[in-house]
This record gives sequence, structure tokens and C-alpha cells, in this order.
Amino acid sequence: MDVPPLPNLDDVLRAAERIRPHAHRTPVLTCAAIDALTGASLYFKCENLQKVGAFKFRGATNAVMSLSDDAARRGVATHSSGNHAAALALAARNRGITAHVVMPSSAPAVKKAAVTGYGARIVECEPTLEARETTLEAVVAETGAAFIHPYNDPRVVAGAGTAALELLTAHPDLDVIMAPVGGGGLMSGTAIASRGLSDRIRIIGAEPELADDAQRSLEAGAIIPSINPRTICDGLLTSLGPLSFTVLSSHLECIVTVSEGAIVRAMRHVWERMKIIIEPSSAVPLAVLLEDRIDLKGLRVGVIVSGGNVNLDQLPWSIPR
Amino acid sequence: MDVPPLPNLDDVLRAAERIRPHAHRTPVLTCAAIDALTGASLYFKCENLQKVGAFKFRGATNAVMSLSDDAARRGVATHSSGNHAAALALAARNRGITAHVVMPSSAPAVKKAAVTGYGARIVECEPTLEARETTLEAVVAETGAAFIHPYNDPRVVAGAGTAALELLTAHPDLDVIMAPVGGGGLMSGTAIASRGLSDRIRIIGAEPELADDAQRSLEAGAIIPSINPRTICDGLLTSLGPLSFTVLSSHLECIVTVSEGAIVRAMRHVWERMKIIIEPSSAVPLAVLLEDRIDLKGLRVGVIVSGGNVNLDQLPWSIPR
Repeated sequence: MDVPPLPNLDDVLRAAERIRPHAHRTPVLTCAAIDALTGASLYFKCENLQKVGAFKFRGATNAVMSLSDDAARRGVATHSSGNHAAALALAARNRGITAHVVMPSSAPAVKKAAVTGYGARIVECEPTLEARETTLEAVVAETGAAFIHPYNDPRVVAGAGTAALELLTAHPDLDVIMAPVGGGGLMSGTAIASRGLSDRIRIIGAEPELADDAQRSLEAGAIIPSINPRTICDGLLTSLGPLSFTVLSSHLECIVTVSEGAIVRAMRHVWERMKIIIEPSSAVPLAVLLEDRIDLKGLRVGVIVSGGNVNLDQLPWSIPR
Repeated sequence: MDVPPLPNLDDVLRAAERIRPHAHRTPVLTCAAIDALTGASLYFKCENLQKVGAFKFRGATNAVMSLSDDAARRGVATHSSGNHAAALALAARNRGITAHVVMPSSAPAVKKAAVTGYGARIVECEPTLEARETTLEAVVAETGAAFIHPYNDPRVVAGAGTAALELLTAHPDLDVIMAPVGGGGLMSGTAIASRGLSDRIRIIGAEPELADDAQRSLEAGAIIPSINPRTICDGLLTSLGPLSFTVLSSHLECIVTVSEGAIVRAMRHVWERMKIIIEPSSAVPLAVLLEDRIDLKGLRVGVIVSGGNVNLDQLPWSIPR
């Protein structure tokens, strides 16, 4: 992957205008009980309550609505079996164009249904990285569709940054902002928006110990790929891309890691105390605080809650281990 | 129970001022997927995201903050093992006074813990209606505490009405407002606020078929007690009181009932599509719409989501039947 042009605060502001008619302005929730447990004042920006249940809808919508009419007419394409695929499918439907989604034939039926439910066309491929890329190339060659990468795309990153923009507009006095790090698109957009709005805000990432490739990449000064990570955080399995590596290297104070058990406990705390459904990936920043992996006591901390897509029949606390 | 003075819109407006420093102004959420299923445009006022996870905090806070300093010094008392007890406990703590909560010795430990966690004093009694009332009388006689009934109290009803007040302030053009009916406190406050703000809004209650005592009471023109109802909706087991019977008789277009299966399906729809945790009681109005028990297609419908207190280890779709 090449390094695309890096987005800046102006791109995030333009993205906010572009997505406004389509995306929810999600609420910011607070919880006295969780504040008491962490010693900090937490402001949760609830992207689990966003359309398709994830922040991904912001980036996908910004990318789709940025296309010229000519380009849009040829549709959009991506490879993903997760939230980005569903987000791109809905964004394309909102513009009245076709989304082609390359998915491994082994993808769960429920994920295929989520994408076709929004009217996208699924193109199946063998479950290998190579098959995924050659199939995507073939789709693009055949249709002329615009490829929208899940995170190595400045339009997607600028769109993701609109969540932090809304949070900091409502609460300009935050001392710290945190987000989970997977491919780094959410963290990059969050960092760009936050630093653009505040010279002093501390920007901190959170990662599962079992998928700590971003932390290791920043330490090594080069992208270290994530190889078969075993974390429960299915939104954080991917490695950094050139864009996110570049942004995170220059913007982040640090990335803090935390154990699987702590992530599940934090997730359950949020379900029980805040009455919102968050996916394991979204619980990682709170887990870091509950485990005292970094001392942010007494500070006002914004947390981007990335999504809420979970299988209600297989909750982590009910799965036999 | 006697009929206390009926609250009016002014009482709701004063309650809103009184509780503002203490209660969350909960978000109003919409969901395109659920709108598509019902054919209506739904506006969910999310009292599951209220403190203690239920609208009950509004009424309890209004009652506690209404007390004179002299009265407050002697504390407050109630009988409840549910959300009202936790709500009164927290409201009392916020005012720095004692809450005495009469609970059957058989109440689950988790419910006792919720109340003591907010600093209230539990007074145990035998699990009979008579023991509950005599124990409460003894507590009041001994301490001089002010009895705050869970719903047959105008301060509690006015407080409950502030949820509808906030909803209709944000969305003044609603055609219909709906709430679940248990003891009728939420429905009464909702009806008083809604009719006070709009001449034309339709006010509709929703009840489980297995606890349809309010519907039967309105038809009969007299309170018909609910006798050992077997519904999953543990917030809707109580019967109307004199206050709620009087208000609902004059304000409601109708009460619509729905089956247990439909309630569980509606609850799961909300969890899956909206990513919020609601308790079974809160799903009853949506269940009524999903089952076409009343035709509100094409209308803007406000729904008060009453609470989100559930046992995450015993979800209705995972309990063996």
C-alpha cells in the first residue's frame, strides 16, 4: 500500500458537512459509577449508536459522497467482511449507486446478510489474502468502481475523525482522548481532529495485548504486521497501513495494551452500568483505565466507542471456556 | 390508598427544574431499520440511559428535592424491591438524607445490593403485603421519614412526566406518545405532560396480555387488581393506584396489549438494531407496533423507554423454556 495524502482538520470539517444529512449525531454519555471506578471523568462518544452500529459509517459515507457524479455512477468496491462492508453498502445505497463487496466464501452467513440487506453485491473469493486482492482488482477492472479501502484512505480517515470533532465541540475542555487501535483509521481521524482543535489534548491509543502490533510498530518505527491475533476484539485484527502508521507516529503520546479478561470485564461494566451494547473492541480504552495501565486520574477523558455489533447468542461471559 | 391531588403541566415543569442538576437529560434515538418494520417514525426517549437505569430516578428525585429541610432531615421511606427503591436511595444520597427501604427478606441479593450500594438502609419484612405495610408504618412512626409511594404520589408522577416533557420539547410535532403501563405512574406523568403541551397528540398505553389489569380497569371503570401476573415484564406487575386510575381514565385513548413472545422479539430487535439495553417492560410499546395491534403507520410516535435493568446472565432468548 502507498501512503495517500494525509487528511487535516479542514478535511474533517468538510467530511462533517458531507455526512451530516446521513449519519446520526451520536450522543455523548457519562456514568458516575464508572467514573468512580476509574477516578477519571469519562465522556463516551457512542458510535455504537451510529448507523450500521459502528463509526465506520462516517468514513464510508464521506468517501462515497466525495465522489464525482461520473465516478459514483461506476459504483464503489471494497474487501471486508466486517463493519466497513456494511457501512459502505448503506452509504452507496444512500447515494443510489452499487457497492461491490469482496468477501471470502467462508464468511458467516450473518455477515453476508448484513451486506446484502443494504443492497450491496457480494463477490465471493477464496479465503486467502491473494484471492481477495486479485478478485478486488478484477471487480474494479470490470466495473470501473472506486476502491474504498477500510482505513488506508484519507476520505475514510477524515470521516472517522468527525466523531472526535463532535465530541470536542460538545466538550472542548477534555484533557485526553482515547480510541481503540486496529487498522488505525479511527485513531488517525481522532488524532487529526483532536490535535487540530487542541494544542494540549493528550492523544492515547488502546490495544489488546494479544493484538499489540500497533504498539510494537510505533516502537520499531516500521509497520509490524499482525499475524493471526487471537483476541476477542474482532474489530482490531488488522495491521496499521501506511496512512495510519504515519499519522499515529507523529500524533500519539502512546498506545497502552490490556488483557483479554480485562476487556471482557470492561465490556460487561458498560453493559451493566451504562445500558448500551458495545463490542469487545470498544471496551479496550476503558479496560486500560480500569486496570490502571495508565494514570489518568482526575482528568477529563473522551473515549470513542467504536461499535456495538455483537452476537447476542454468544456473549463473552456466557461462552463456555 | 386515597386519591392524592392530581399534578398538572406546571407541576411537571417545576419538577424539571428541580431534577435538572441531578438527572441525565437522556437522548432521543431513532432507528431507520425499526421504522421500516413498523411503518411509523419512532422517537425513543431513552430512560434506560437515566441514572439507576430507569425513569424512576426522575420521580424519586422530584419527591426528595420537594421536601422541606425539616421534613428531609427525617429521611424518606418506601417499600419496593425494584427500580423505585434504587432511585429513592440515590435521590436521598444526593440530598444527604437517609432512605429506609422495606423489602421482603426473600428479595434477591442483587436487588438488596443495588439499594445498599446507594447508601440506603434496608428493613426486611416477611414476603406478604400485610407485613410490608405494617413494617413500613413502623419505620415511618419510628423515624418520621416521609413515605414516597412508587407511583401513587403526585410528586413522583410529575417527575416521571419530565421524560415526555423533554421528548416533546425536542420533537414538538409528535402525533402519538406511548409508554408501558404497570402501576401507571410513568403513563400518568407522560399523559399529563403530553396533553398539557399538545391538544392533538394521541396518548396510548401498552401492556402485556398476561398483565392486562390496567386495560380491564379502564374498561370496567374501577381498579381491577393484578393478581399474580406471569409476565416476563417485571416492571409491570403492579396494579393501578387511585391517582393513575383517575389520570389514565381521563387522558388515554386506549391501552393495547401484546403477547410475551412479541415482547421478547421486540426487546431483541432493539438490542440488535439500536445497540441499547432495554428491559422487557420497555419493549411492550414497540411490540404492539411490530404486531400491528394498532395502526399507527405513517405517524410520528414517541416511545418512553422505561428502563434497562436486566440480568445479563439470564437473557430471555437464552433461558431454556
